[in-house]
This record gives sequence, C-alpha cells and structure tokens, in this order.
Amino acid sequence: MELLILAPLAGLVSIIAAFYFHWYVNRHDVGSSKMKEISDAIRIGANAYLKRQNMALAAFVAVMAIILGVAFMNYHLAIAYVLGSICTTAAAYFGMNAAVRANVRTANSAQKGVDKALPVAYFGGAVMGLSIVGMAVLGTSVLYFIYNDIYQDPGLALTTVLGFSFGASALALFAKAGGGIFTKTADIGADLVGKVELGIPEDDPRNPAVIADNVGDNVGDVAGMGADLIDSYIAGMIATMLLGAALYGNIIYVILPLIVKALGIVASILGILFVRVRIKGNPGAALNRGTFATCIIFAALLFVTIESLNLGEQGLGLFLSTIAGLVAGVVIGITTDFFTSIDRTPVFRTAESSKTGAAINIISGFSYGLLSIIPPTIGIVLAILASWNISLFYNVNPFYGIATAAVGMLATLGTVIAADAYGPIADNAKGIAEQSGLGEEVISLVDRLDAAGNTTKAISKGFAIGAAALQVIALFFAYSLEVGIPGIINLMDPYVIGGVFIGAMMPPVFSALLMLAVGKNSYIMVEEVRRQFKEIPGLMEGKSKPDYARCVDIATKGALKELIPSGVLAIGVPLVVGFALGKEALAGFLGGSIITGIIFALLMANAGGTWDNAKKYIEEGKFGGKGSEAHKAAVVGDTVGDPFKDTAGPSLNTMITVMALAATVFAPLFL
Amino acid sequence: MELLILAPLAGLVSIIAAFYFHWYVNRHDVGSSKMKEISDAIRIGANAYLKRQNMALAAFVAVMAIILGVAFMNYHLAIAYVLGSICTTAAAYFGMNAAVRANVRTANSAQKGVDKALPVAYFGGAVMGLSIVGMAVLGTSVLYFIYNDIYQDPGLALTTVLGFSFGASALALFAKAGGGIFTKTADIGADLVGKVELGIPEDDPRNPAVIADNVGDNVGDVAGMGADLIDSYIAGMIATMLLGAALYGNIIYVILPLIVKALGIVASILGILFVRVRIKGNPGAALNRGTFATCIIFAALLFVTIESLNLGEQGLGLFLSTIAGLVAGVVIGITTDFFTSIDRTPVFRTAESSKTGAAINIISGFSYGLLSIIPPTIGIVLAILASWNISLFYNVNPFYGIATAAVGMLATLGTVIAADAYGPIADNAKGIAEQSGLGEEVISLVDRLDAAGNTTKAISKGFAIGAAALQVIALFFAYSLEVGIPGIINLMDPYVIGGVFIGAMMPPVFSALLMLAVGKNSYIMVEEVRRQFKEIPGLMEGKSKPDYARCVDIATKGALKELIPSGVLAIGVPLVVGFALGKEALAGFLGGSIITGIIFALLMANAGGTWDNAKKYIEEGKFGGKGSEAHKAAVVGDTVGDPFKDTAGPSLNTMITVMALAATVFAPLFL
Repeated sequence: MELLILAPLAGLVSIIAAFYFHWYVNRHDVGSSKMKEISDAIRIGANAYLKRQNMALAAFVAVMAIILGVAFMNYHLAIAYVLGSICTTAAAYFGMNAAVRANVRTANSAQKGVDKALPVAYFGGAVMGLSIVGMAVLGTSVLYFIYNDIYQDPGLALTTVLGFSFGASALALFAKAGGGIFTKTADIGADLVGKVELGIPEDDPRNPAVIADNVGDNVGDVAGMGADLIDSYIAGMIATMLLGAALYGNIIYVILPLIVKALGIVASILGILFVRVRIKGNPGAALNRGTFATCIIFAALLFVTIESLNLGEQGLGLFLSTIAGLVAGVVIGITTDFFTSIDRTPVFRTAESSKTGAAINIISGFSYGLLSIIPPTIGIVLAILASWNISLFYNVNPFYGIATAAVGMLATLGTVIAADAYGPIADNAKGIAEQSGLGEEVISLVDRLDAAGNTTKAISKGFAIGAAALQVIALFFAYSLEVGIPGIINLMDPYVIGGVFIGAMMPPVFSALLMLAVGKNSYIMVEEVRRQFKEIPGLMEGKSKPDYARCVDIATKGALKELIPSGVLAIGVPLVVGFALGKEALAGFLGGSIITGIIFALLMANAGGTWDNAKKYIEEGKFGGKGSEAHKAAVVGDTVGDPFKDTAGPSLNTMITVMALAATVFAPLFL
Repeated sequence: MELLILAPLAGLVSIIAAFYFHWYVNRHDVGSSKMKEISDAIRIGANAYLKRQNMALAAFVAVMAIILGVAFMNYHLAIAYVLGSICTTAAAYFGMNAAVRANVRTANSAQKGVDKALPVAYFGGAVMGLSIVGMAVLGTSVLYFIYNDIYQDPGLALTTVLGFSFGASALALFAKAGGGIFTKTADIGADLVGKVELGIPEDDPRNPAVIADNVGDNVGDVAGMGADLIDSYIAGMIATMLLGAALYGNIIYVILPLIVKALGIVASILGILFVRVRIKGNPGAALNRGTFATCIIFAALLFVTIESLNLGEQGLGLFLSTIAGLVAGVVIGITTDFFTSIDRTPVFRTAESSKTGAAINIISGFSYGLLSIIPPTIGIVLAILASWNISLFYNVNPFYGIATAAVGMLATLGTVIAADAYGPIADNAKGIAEQSGLGEEVISLVDRLDAAGNTTKAISKGFAIGAAALQVIALFFAYSLEVGIPGIINLMDPYVIGGVFIGAMMPPVFSALLMLAVGKNSYIMVEEVRRQFKEIPGLMEGKSKPDYARCVDIATKGALKELIPSGVLAIGVPLVVGFALGKEALAGFLGGSIITGIIFALLMANAGGTWDNAKKYIEEGKFGGKGSEAHKAAVVGDTVGDPFKDTAGPSLNTMITVMALAATVFAPLFL
C-alpha cells in the first residue's frame, strides 16, 4: 500500500519543492529600474507569446479530444488526452515564469559575486525541472489508479492512461517546434543585421530584435526544452508499465516504473541542493556535482527499495538494467561533449578552418556533427544489449528489462532539466547585464555562468536523445504487443521495408519544414530590422528607441503559422501508413523513424554546438579574434547552427515519440 | 544455347561500340596549339593521378586477394576478386581517356555550331557508358560459365562470381572517394582564392589550381562516376542470379538477369544513336530523347524475349516487375530534378535567401535537400511493393521479383552513364574555351551544352541512388539466404536492433571522413594558391605562368592518403559486427546502412545541386547578379555543396554495396 502512495506523494513533493524554489528566486531583488524595465519587457513578451500559442493549441486539443472521443466511443481516453495537454502546458508555463524572474535577479546578484548569482540561476531552472517531473508522475499515477479502479484491469487502464502521454507529447511537440522557430527567427534576425552588418554587439539595446531574441531564449529554450523532455519521461514510464501488465501477472511489475520515477524525484531534489559554489569557485563543476550527486543518491535509493520488494534474482536484474540505462546516459553525455567542447579538436579545427572562409567552417562543423553520432550510437547499442543480457541472466523478461533501462536513464530528469533551464537563464542574465550597463566585471562574471551552461546543455541534450531512443524502443515493443504481433517484426517483409523507408524519411522532412520556417521568418525579420535602422532617426546613435514589439510580433506570427502543419504531419502520417499499408508497415515505420530521428537529432544538436563554440573560440582572440574575416566566417557557421541545434534537432525526439504514441493509441482502429 | 551466348556477345558488342565511339571522337580536330596545350596538361595530370591511384590500390588488391585465398583456402574467389578490380579499372581508365580527348574537341567543334559539338561530347561520354556495362556483362557471364563448369552447381559458381562483384565494388569505392576528394580539393582551392578573394573568373589560366580543377572533373566526375555505377550494376545482377539459383531449380531464372542486361546493352547502343541535335536545337531535349528511346527499345526487346522463353504467367510477372523498376527509376529521376532545377521554387528560394547572407542560403538549400528525399523514397517503396505484389499475383517468387526490379532499373545503364559522363566533358570544354580565348559566342554555346549536362546529371544521380537501394535490398535477400536465416530478420531481436543502429551510423560517419579530408586538403590548397599569387611576380597581371603541377600534386597526395582508411572501414566494420555480434546483427547492420545510405546520398546530391544552381541563377543577373553580396553568399553555399554532391554523396551507394558484398562474401567464415 505504501508503494502505491509513493508515486503521487513524490509528485506532490516535487511540485511543492518547485514552488519553494520559485519563492526563493522571487525573494531576490531585481536591481535598478533600467533592469526592471528590460526584464519586464522580456517577461511580458514571453507571456504574450505563450498565451497566443496556447489559444491556438486549445482549438487543436479540442478537435483531437473530439476525434478520440468519437473514434473510440469512450470519453475516458479524450479526458486523459486533455489532462496530458493541460499538465504539460501548466508545468512549462510555471517553469518559464520562474526563468523570466530568475534572469534579472541573477544579473543583479552577480554584482555581489558568483556564489550569490549561481543559486538564483540554478534554482530558477530547478523550478522547471521539478514542476515537470512532479506533474508527470502525479498525473500518471493518479490516472492509473482511477482507471484501474474503473476497469479493474491494469492493461486496459494503461491503454487509457496512454492518452495522457499522447496529450503531453503532442503539446510538447508544438511547444518545442513553435518556441524553436520563434527563438531562432529572433536570434538570426538580430545577429545578421546587428552583429554582421552594423557591427554592434550582441544584446545591444539599439537592436530592434533584441527583446524578441531574449523572449525567444525563454519560450524556446526554457519552455520548449521543458516540454520536450517531459514527453520521453512519461511515454517511457507508461510503455514500461504496459509491458509489465502484458508480460507479468504480478502488479509489482506494473507499478515498478512509477516507483523508480518517484525515487528519481527524491534523488533530484536532494541532488539539486548540492549545487553551491564558493566566491572563487567553478560554476561548471558545481553543476556537474549536482548531476553526479543525484545519480549516486538515486542508485542507492533504488537498490534499497528493490531489495525491500523481495523480488529475488529478478530484483537484482532490474536494478542492474536500470543502472545500465543511467550509466549509458551519463557516458553518452560526456563523450558527446567532446565534439562540442571549446577546448577539444573538433571546435579547434572548425575555428581554424574559418580562416579560409565560411564554406570550410561549415563543412568542418557539419562533418564533426556527423562523427558525433558514434559515441551515443554505441552507448545506446551497449545499453540495449547489456539490459537484454542482464535480463536473460536474471530471468527477467528481456523486453521489460530494456524498457526498464529507458526508465532508469530518465529517472533523474529533474536535475537534468534544472541544469538545462539554467543555461538560458544565465544567457538572459548576460543580456540584461549588457543592456543595463552593469560594467565589465559583472558582465564577465555572468559570462562565466553562461559558458558553464553551454557544456551542461550539450551533456543533457546527448542524455535526452539517448533516453529518447531507449524509450521509443520500449514504446515500439508496447506497440507490437498492442497490435498482436509480439516478438516478431520481419525486416524481410516488403511492407515492413516500405514502412522503414517512409518512417526514416519523416525526421529529415520534419527538420526541413522547421528550418525552412526559420529561414523564411528570419528573412522577414532581417528586412524589418534593416527598415527600422533606416527609418527611425537617431536609432544607431542610441538617441531614440526601436520598436521592439513589432519584432516580437513577427516572430510570434511566424512560429504560430508553422505549428499546426508540423503537428498534423507527426500525428497524421503514422495513421495513414497504418490504415493504408497495415500494422506491419507501421511497425517498420516506427523503427525507421527511430533510427533517423536519433541520427539527425545528434547531428543537428552537435554540429550546432561545434559551430557555436568555434565562434566563441575565435571571440576569445584566436585566429584574428572578433571582427576578423575568420570571425565573420564563424558567425555564418553559428547562424546555420542555430536552427540545427535549437529548432529542428530538439524537436526530433519529441516527434518520434508522438508518432509512436499516435500509432499505439490508434492501433485498435486499424486492426 | 543461343541464350547462353547472348550475354557475353552483348558485352563484346558493347566494348566494340565503345571503341568505335572512341575512334569517332579522336577523328575530330583538337584546334589551336593553345587548346592542345591546355588539353594535354589536363590529360597528363589525369593520367598521372590515375596511375598513382592504381599503384596504391594494386597493393591493396594484392593483400585482399591473399586474405581471400587464405581464408577460404580456394584461389578461385581471389582470382574473381582480382579480375573484378582489373575490369573496373580498365573500363574507367578507357572511358576517362575518351573524355579527356572529347573535351577539347567539343570546344573546337563548338566553333562550327551546337549540332557539331553535342555528338563529340555525348559520344565521348558513351565510351565510358558502353565500356563499363560491356566489361561488367562480359566478365560476369564468362566467369559464371567457367565456374559453373568447374563446380557443376550454379549456386556455388555464383558465390565465387560474387568475388568479381566485390573486387569491382571495392575498386569503385576507392575510385569514387579518391576522385571525389581530388576534384573538390582542387575546385574549392581554385574558387576560394580565385573567384572569392581575387575576383578573377572561373577557369582563368592565371589561377594555379585551374589545371588541377580540370583534372579533378575527369578523375572525379568521369572516372569516379563510371566506377560508381558499375558496382550496383554488377552486384544487382549477381544477387538476382544467386536468388534464382537458390529459389528455383530452373536454370533460366539463373541466367535471366544476364539476358535482361544484354537486352539493356542493345537498347543503350541504339538509344545513344538518337542523340542528335539541329543547329538551333535544345541539347537538353536531345539527351532526354536518348534516355527515353533506350527505355522504350529495352521494354520492347524484353517483352519479345520473355515471350519467346515460354515462362507462362511467370514471364509476364517478371516482365512487369522489371518494367516497374525501370519506371520507378525514371520517375525518381524526374521528380528529384524538381529540387535542383534552376527554374523551380527550391532553387529560386535558395537564391533569394542569399540576399540576407550565406547562412540562410545554406539553411535553405540544406532543407530542400532534406525534402528531396520524399519522391525517391516513395518511388522506392512503390517499386518494392509493386514488384512484390505483381510477383505474388503471377506466381513468381516475390524476393526474386523485387531483385528483378533492381536489375530492370539499371538495365539501361549504358545510356545513363553516357549522359552522365557528358556533363564533365561539356564542363571541361567550357573551361578550355575560356582558357584559350575562343570568344563570347563559342563560350556561351558551350555553356548551353554544360547547362544541359547539369539536369541530366541530377536525373541520373537520382536514378543511380534509387537503383542502388533496390539492388542492395536484393543483396540483403541474398545475404539472408547465404547465412541460412531466409525469410526472417526480426526487428525486435536486440542484436538486430543493435546492428541496425551501427549500420545506420556508417554512411554519415563515412561522409564525414571524406568531407573532412576535402576540408583539410583544400585548406592546404588555398594556402598554396595564395602563396603563388604572392610569390610569383606578374602572375596576377598574366605576365608569368603559375606552377600548375604543384597544385595537382597537393590534390593527388591528399586524395591518396585518405583512400585506404575509408575502404578498410567499409570492408572491416561489417566483418567486426559479423564476428562479434553474429549473423542477425549483421543483417540488421546491412538494413540500417541501406536506410541512411540512401537518405544521406539523396540529401547530399540534391542539396549540393540546389546550391550550385542557386549560384548560377544569381549569375544570370538575378538578385544583384555576379559580384553582389547575394552572389558571394551563394558561392559559399555552392562551395559547401561541392563535397556534398561530388565527394560524399556519390560514394555512399558504393559504400553500402561494398558492405553488403563484404558481408555476403565473408559470411561462410563467421557461420
């Protein structure tokens, strides 16, 4: 009984902790009236965007809910779907609200030292991390208990709870894609005219797109990334519960994923508290300490809990599978970091090649992005083979064992998101410090906070992609059970081959649509920024103010217009394949989409990171430094990388999750 | 009996026709002594490169032959392997030899009109086309007859003949990768300093890298492309013969692929003769007429031949499967052309976005490259499903039916290669016309010939990639029969999943290595060209001559250094996967490599084509024309596209073929 209560309780505690950190951030002072003004503009812009996005999505959610209700003649699935949408949105909104308050307070606290500023930024990020995982575990566990009570059958109950995951993932996809388009439209528009054409610094208040750029960091990187990770988290958990229900009679295997997540929440809350730094300390090391502390605490808690469940050798097998997933996640993150780290060969060579112009810089960064696929791929394969063989050895059902590895990989998500959301908060703090003229010393201090965020971001992205791979494989198993082809999907069946080809095509096509949207919108943005500099007298001299709102509006409209088509694609194509070519083809489709989804996600995230840091490396004074030809070339590479790493790349793992969920949820209809 | 003789006879006729066209080209006058001088420099440079490449590869072939001989304790496989290597090299060398003679003669004939110049260029390309297919069919059929006589078992004979295919493909991979690195090193080096930094025209004789660039067109585009397509052609043919031997008792199904190829050769020779143009005619239309005429003649010949074989409903099924492959090939080529055509939206938008700088140009071209995956993927899937269902309907073994579609798709390869090799000949003719000052009118005429070649090239690339996909699927079936897991490769087996992930990783990693090689070498080339302009007095004013040979040497050394590692990767990794993870994992590995191999090949070929034509579009005077900021941005895009479309992209289909062959040939060892 106490086991049943563990999950909702942990979820609740997590939400309470999120409120505490929100309160902690708010307690700090915003600083000068200039700082308040800038931060208000960012907050208002971000809120306005989210409001408009949510209104557009409300209509979509309503239509989907009606379709689900009518198609299945059962309102429970529709309700779960709507709840999933609402929970994701609420958590992302709350987290972003903390972030837009934390940024200005971080900048202000930085005047007192790094030891004062780091906690504000990090705990600001923790609000997102803990509200997301809390909402996810609370929602899933409560819905499961309710529907299990109604249906008196864990399998049926979970098929309905899957609607919760579907709602959360669909919303996450929209949030990530929309936020990603917004943020890069603004970023590219601001940079191309401001930095490249006019030579004014980044985040200069004269740039009309600067507020849109700062807003973008929040709606794209904070809200979008938060929404992005929740979907893998929930889907992996429910898929494993479904496998537990289908493969085992024992209820303990159904609720074990909930227990693992609950322990992960406890570990995350404790681990987050480890992130402290002294006045002369290294912020990057502090962030990593938080991640490692969480992992160790989690492993310890898990071991004790599984021992107390008396599952015998199976318990040990499940513990080892979970830990295999966790270790793979960390290893993937660290090795991938090699390709984007500012003091490693890939970034150095990419920066060096900028001396011959933008073209070779791009070829170089792109190539290292392709090579960066190697460590995560090997990590994923080892995690799969390890958990499979561990499971066979300890008499655990091996499909369940692999799914458990996926649950383990994401168990400590609270900390991962906290460190991830920290990045844009520090980035925004830097912008605010520059725009409000806090002086060289403070700016360089906030810059150090920002740089620490970049590495963390690279690690957690690798982590998220690795986890998404395992989690979608778990969903893939769940799908095959659901459609009644358990255990065999034949790669020599031409319908499976056809499905694989079509599925593999989806992630690149989806990326292309998002990037074209960025290209198109930033083209409009560039024209607008150029127009303002031309038509507003005294703008360049800083004597008059630009029309920030107009740029925010362009980014908003552009993002919202592209949202619905990409979402419809992700939900619609799997259904078309299922109805037209059958369940085997759809299984192949999911398999194909996982493969290219992971490869393109890694390529885009890491090539983008390499270009970004190659530019930063040159800005440190190497190869001619700022303003040199090499720097201009590196800025082109960085700009190409923007939609790679912040729009298309991070949307892909959500996209493959949404497709797998659409397939599994709608499977009864085309059987 | 007459059927058995058909294939070697057609092969012989093809080679004789190639000699005729070589003689036809040579009959034409080379023009002025200036033209002779330039063309001699290109020919000598190209021959010198091929000689050095062949010496390096001779050592590799010898080592491989010894490994094969020792591992299988049977010298037959080693002999077939060596013969495959030699045939490919000889055909590619002969074809290139014609091309380096045709280019200068095309330029000279252009002074008398387009009706005189087109045949020289096109029949020059036909030498490559016909010598390649002739050698392939002659070699395969003769070896098959000899070993069938020795072993008295078609299956055993074909397992040995597979060595011929393996040798041809391995050499093709080296030729394509090496030539691709050579050509782009020279091209980028020449363009970045000449066009971008100094603003001198393309193919300007003052540029030290100009001869290396022209040599590159021949060793990369002509020799490399010829070698590239032969591997799919041979492998698909032998794989289908293997399936015929394994699935049918009747010998007719074993030799049917040989008959289909023989008919394709006859159709190609006749179709090539259709390529004529009037003095005011359109060269592009003439090239397409050749392709369509070949297809129609082939279909008619095939129908009559199959009817005469009295195979009943199975005959009709096989005819329709073959035609399904052929139609899919043409449709894939034409639809893919949309994405790279100078008068279509993708090129227009990419050119337009250059107005905001290089970054959005690159994002745009890359995105359209991703979208270009759609039509070929759907085409491949439809070809597979159509030939599968046709086969089931007409009682043909469906695996054999799909393989037959692959044979059909490439049956008219002679014409496809002729049109493809025409491209670089026309391109070189343009360069020679410019360097020897033939005057505006002649240059613009040769330019029209060149432009016609670009579209043909795009079509035949799409064609080649589609065919490679089907052909590797046929090999994949053959592999599964060979290793004794016929009919089932389970996508839910974790070893298969692991294999799929590792296999899918290979094409991107291979691309990265080739592109990094281009980046590294062109960096050296840029430094050398800059040095010459700085240190050789009077070079810029045209008063002294640059050191062409040194640039040719840099490109040669750079290409040869990277050759062996990439080849070892393609042959070695499948063996490691087979030995370490087993035959199921290796099957998954092949499946994964096919998927991403096709996707990356299409992306790279088409994104490259889009960038190239966007630049040309601007050079026509749009968006500011030559020398504008938009043009500079488009040149960056074009340079990024160079290694995409001419180095990495075209190597990928050969790479997946080599991996599939390595797996199938070495399968007996790890069983």
